[in-house]
Amino acid sequence: MLPLLRRILFGRPLASRRARHERLPKMLALPVFASDALSSSAYATEEMLLVLWMAGAAALSLTLPITGCIIALLAIVIFSYRQTVHAYPEGGGAFTVSRENLGDGFGLTAAAALLIGYLLTVAVSIAAGAAAVASAFPALQEHRTLLCLMFIALITIANLRGAKESGALFAPPTYGFVAVILFMVGFGAYRYFSGSVEPLPPKDPPGELRDLSFFLILTAFARGCAALTGTEAISDGVQAFKAPEAKNAAATLAYMGILLTLLFGGISWLARVLGVTPVGSHGEGAETLVSSIARLVFGGSGIDGFYYVVQGATALILILAANTAYVDFPRLSSILARAGFAPRQLANVGDRLVFTNGILVLGLLAGLTLWIVKGDTHALIPLYALGVFLSFTLSQSGMVARWLRIKGPGWKLYAAINGFGAITTAIVCVVQFLVNFESGSWAIAIAISIMVLALTKIKRHYDQFRRELSVENYEVREKLNVRVVVLAPRLDRGVAQAIEFARTIAEPEHIIALHVNIDPQAPSIYRRVVKRGPNLEAKLQFMHPAAQRLQDEWATKIKDIPLTIIDSEYRSLVAPVIEYLDKLIEEEKLDKAIVVIPEFHAAKTWHNLLHNQSGLMLKLALLNKPNVVVTNVRYRLSR
Amino acid sequence: MLPLLRRILFGRPLASRRARHERLPKMLALPVFASDALSSSAYATEEMLLVLWMAGAAALSLTLPITGCIIALLAIVIFSYRQTVHAYPEGGGAFTVSRENLGDGFGLTAAAALLIGYLLTVAVSIAAGAAAVASAFPALQEHRTLLCLMFIALITIANLRGAKESGALFAPPTYGFVAVILFMVGFGAYRYFSGSVEPLPPKDPPGELRDLSFFLILTAFARGCAALTGTEAISDGVQAFKAPEAKNAAATLAYMGILLTLLFGGISWLARVLGVTPVGSHGEGAETLVSSIARLVFGGSGIDGFYYVVQGATALILILAANTAYVDFPRLSSILARAGFAPRQLANVGDRLVFTNGILVLGLLAGLTLWIVKGDTHALIPLYALGVFLSFTLSQSGMVARWLRIKGPGWKLYAAINGFGAITTAIVCVVQFLVNFESGSWAIAIAISIMVLALTKIKRHYDQFRRELSVENYEVREKLNVRVVVLAPRLDRGVAQAIEFARTIAEPEHIIALHVNIDPQAPSIYRRVVKRGPNLEAKLQFMHPAAQRLQDEWATKIKDIPLTIIDSEYRSLVAPVIEYLDKLIEEEKLDKAIVVIPEFHAAKTWHNLLHNQSGLMLKLALLNKPNVVVTNVRYRLSR
Repeated sequence: MLPLLRRILFGRPLASRRARHERLPKMLALPVFASDALSSSAYATEEMLLVLWMAGAAALSLTLPITGCIIALLAIVIFSYRQTVHAYPEGGGAFTVSRENLGDGFGLTAAAALLIGYLLTVAVSIAAGAAAVASAFPALQEHRTLLCLMFIALITIANLRGAKESGALFAPPTYGFVAVILFMVGFGAYRYFSGSVEPLPPKDPPGELRDLSFFLILTAFARGCAALTGTEAISDGVQAFKAPEAKNAAATLAYMGILLTLLFGGISWLARVLGVTPVGSHGEGAETLVSSIARLVFGGSGIDGFYYVVQGATALILILAANTAYVDFPRLSSILARAGFAPRQLANVGDRLVFTNGILVLGLLAGLTLWIVKGDTHALIPLYALGVFLSFTLSQSGMVARWLRIKGPGWKLYAAINGFGAITTAIVCVVQFLVNFESGSWAIAIAISIMVLALTKIKRHYDQFRRELSVENYEVREKLNVRVVVLAPRLDRGVAQAIEFARTIAEPEHIIALHVNIDPQAPSIYRRVVKRGPNLEAKLQFMHPAAQRLQDEWATKIKDIPLTIIDSEYRSLVAPVIEYLDKLIEEEKLDKAIVVIPEFHAAKTWHNLLHNQSGLMLKLALLNKPNVVVTNVRYRLSR
Repeated sequence: MLPLLRRILFGRPLASRRARHERLPKMLALPVFASDALSSSAYATEEMLLVLWMAGAAALSLTLPITGCIIALLAIVIFSYRQTVHAYPEGGGAFTVSRENLGDGFGLTAAAALLIGYLLTVAVSIAAGAAAVASAFPALQEHRTLLCLMFIALITIANLRGAKESGALFAPPTYGFVAVILFMVGFGAYRYFSGSVEPLPPKDPPGELRDLSFFLILTAFARGCAALTGTEAISDGVQAFKAPEAKNAAATLAYMGILLTLLFGGISWLARVLGVTPVGSHGEGAETLVSSIARLVFGGSGIDGFYYVVQGATALILILAANTAYVDFPRLSSILARAGFAPRQLANVGDRLVFTNGILVLGLLAGLTLWIVKGDTHALIPLYALGVFLSFTLSQSGMVARWLRIKGPGWKLYAAINGFGAITTAIVCVVQFLVNFESGSWAIAIAISIMVLALTKIKRHYDQFRRELSVENYEVREKLNVRVVVLAPRLDRGVAQAIEFARTIAEPEHIIALHVNIDPQAPSIYRRVVKRGPNLEAKLQFMHPAAQRLQDEWATKIKDIPLTIIDSEYRSLVAPVIEYLDKLIEEEKLDKAIVVIPEFHAAKTWHNLLHNQSGLMLKLALLNKPNVVVTNVRYRLSR
């Protein structure tokens, strides 16, 4: 059942030899790496307007100036990253660049910021995708959280199957989104200038009015900076480009910048000239800004239905953006794991040649996050740009440090560009932190600190572990001093086989057959006990009649190994065995005591219920004793 | 934490030598064994009246005649059981008596009927106790199910602690209940005859009227027979009496019969003469019959508060009655287990010298039952007398068969008495089945059949198991043909220790050090592999560079055992190891392959998360291979 389900959900395992690194032409690389960045145009304007709107309709006149600032910032970041791409053609993620040039601490900070950023990207994108779907179908509004979780499940499964391999899969939705939004902007411009669409009448925001302070403007700017998220993706994946890798990657970065400018700028411009105001994407009458614009632009145009195309394309690109994080998060985790900063399991390559554990961790965390915030994007967007800008800053600073160190030809110009990028993004980073402090940026800062601490601690453990286990100064010994203790609850073929096994691995004089008497009957008619092994104080002076019978039977069948019988005062098997082993190990100065537990391999599963699970209890108890080696010898029952 | 909680809840473990079989004088034996039977007077009359009431107020005139019939039946049963007590002074429960005289099938039927009966006793008594509490405090009516489950939890814990030991604990509530009810009957009679209390005016039942058919009268009788439940307890526990056991037990039986007659008869009589009608113990205005009577008898008498004493005493005895089942169920289960009819674990004596597993099973089943019926007694009472009367019938029939077989002095009279008892209870049993058919007696019949089948099947398995494992015709061999396979993911002290261990238990030429290469990188630069062990087809012709490094390092440290490297096509550790072992076992005709898995004993628990759990996965997978012996050699990490 389970293997079949697994096969259906995830496909059949792929052999290692099928692992290959797809080399993408620019036309395919752009959708693969830029879908995240481009998708943020779907909500960046709205986030900005929602802040301005608090200061009333007049404040909306700042829409275009702020948009301009953000586009300028984008240009700076893209210029900076083009240099990173050239400097690190083998792939220069923020972790790599900062760690190499600024040290472990900064590298880990960048990594933590990115990991949290990826997590929030998934959450924000999925929530925005669900919002786009729910704007088109209002009946789904109340099931938004469920919709989000379904998307998460789908995208997790798709990635566990190995969705990243299908590079061509990304092109249609990404180019489709770009085309659809550009068409909307163009068509809107045409209708606006031809006067066939009326700008909406000015109205007042529903909430309390606030003063248009500098702080509010900064906040609007900071929120709009969401448009820049995802820009770093290309720098990380230069190796995926066709040769010349760096040149192609740098060109793709530029194209991406141009497209993003057109989309983000176009949407902001349309919102401004058409007087579209944000209503929020949650609660009564919820609608995304892009949805409002599309409704207005295509309403009464004869192609009203194109509204649904816009919504569909938006939802698709947002879900695709989440997919980018599904590639980035596991990859960064695996890099951390291989460097010893994260649990080793995150570097495991699963059945479908993907980092299964990283994908699962991301899916679980993202599902949990969306479930906690009930699918509300706005709670998360203020949080998610902070990590992104922190990694921008560290990455660019690392580049500056690199130029200062290696001083290649033209290094001063390069250092200046990266330095300008670093300073700009650092300022934005501080702005993000300050304006979003109340919205929870403090929590992100704490989360990043805790993660850095945890990653450092993990690294320390792995280093210690390797040092402690190193065989460098270790003389491998010839043999150990051991005794074999065979548990004999009765004398049957299972126990006989265990004895045969013990004789195979040790000399009879090193074997102890141990019977624990757990019968609660008072030992009033016991006889004297035959003892073997350590000189235990004789607790049981007389033998239980059943134990005596076993003793007699034993003596006729197994002559070379006498049966040692100990009494269990509290009828537990575990305690007296452990006590016996402790004394045995101490008195005989053993390296290891080998405990042989006879078990049965039942023909039918339900038979297992009918046999004492005391062997299992004993095994669990012995887990805490490193100098005890537990061995189950199982007798196969034919029926 | 957990051991401490356990200690607090259940007390410290008791040593076996503290197991003693309390011998009870009649004065203490009566409360211990009769609390169940006496407690049924708290609801038997009500159950009867609820049926008659369906035929209107006039039908209530049958109250006293039917009560008389039931008391007569009680006398018959008690006479019958007195003989059983004399015949089986070592304890003659229905299972023992029927199995010995009628065969396994009837014995198991009696056992199944009793086990189900005990379960229902607990459910009914707890529910009735909760009803009594809720009658006094109507605010609790809506939390009846919760109240029931709390009582179950308390009584289960008390029994796991070993409540049965405190024989004297039973006396106050039992004698208290008897005294309180007798006082209520006497006081009621006094007030009735002195005219200081007015009988209630006749009223009509709330539901639909039915004809007073013979069937309805039979049903009322059958329901009233609940008064007889628990009568069998003494016959089962003769050994608990002081010598002369049989004589004392028989006398106690007689006292119990007299007390039960007084209580049950008195309550029926009071209900009749005071015109108290049942209102049902569930839903709006719920109140038990005893509560209504007590309210009327003590209302305006100057000792109105005595009402609460009646309710408290009733609740207490009902919970105590459940306690009887908590002793009987585990004891019968353990008898079945020792005879091989039930899972062995039920015969285990726990920390506190009680049959822990049986108590837990009963608690869980009773809790489940009460949760399903939502604490409503009436749904269960029709079901629970059937099993009781079935066991009466089988037990008495067994006695008849016994007399016919051994024919001691006066056997004809004895056989006649038991025969009369058997016939009477058989008739009642049939009546119970027929009148309660719609209420679910069919389900009880089916449940008993299924249980008998299951018990038989368990016995068959244990017999087969013993036969198959018998060493009678088994020649214990000197040694087995084994190979030791040491898994070597790397070369560290843990693996070195595993090699030392392997050298201790086998000759170097029988040891195979196995490395599985799970690195997904394509084997383009592999070199030729050194092989050892079975002649596997050479899958991996060239060696992975990391594997080659390991190979070289290995050769310098461990000279006598070369490293065998196999490649894992799908990066799983499990599949290639299993494939290798299968071939090894087949080609070398091994009895056992010993797999040594090096593990670590981490200094801190969280460290376990940081190491691959692949050893665990492998162990789980190897559980299905009885000719593979898995051994974990653990290296103790100092920190």
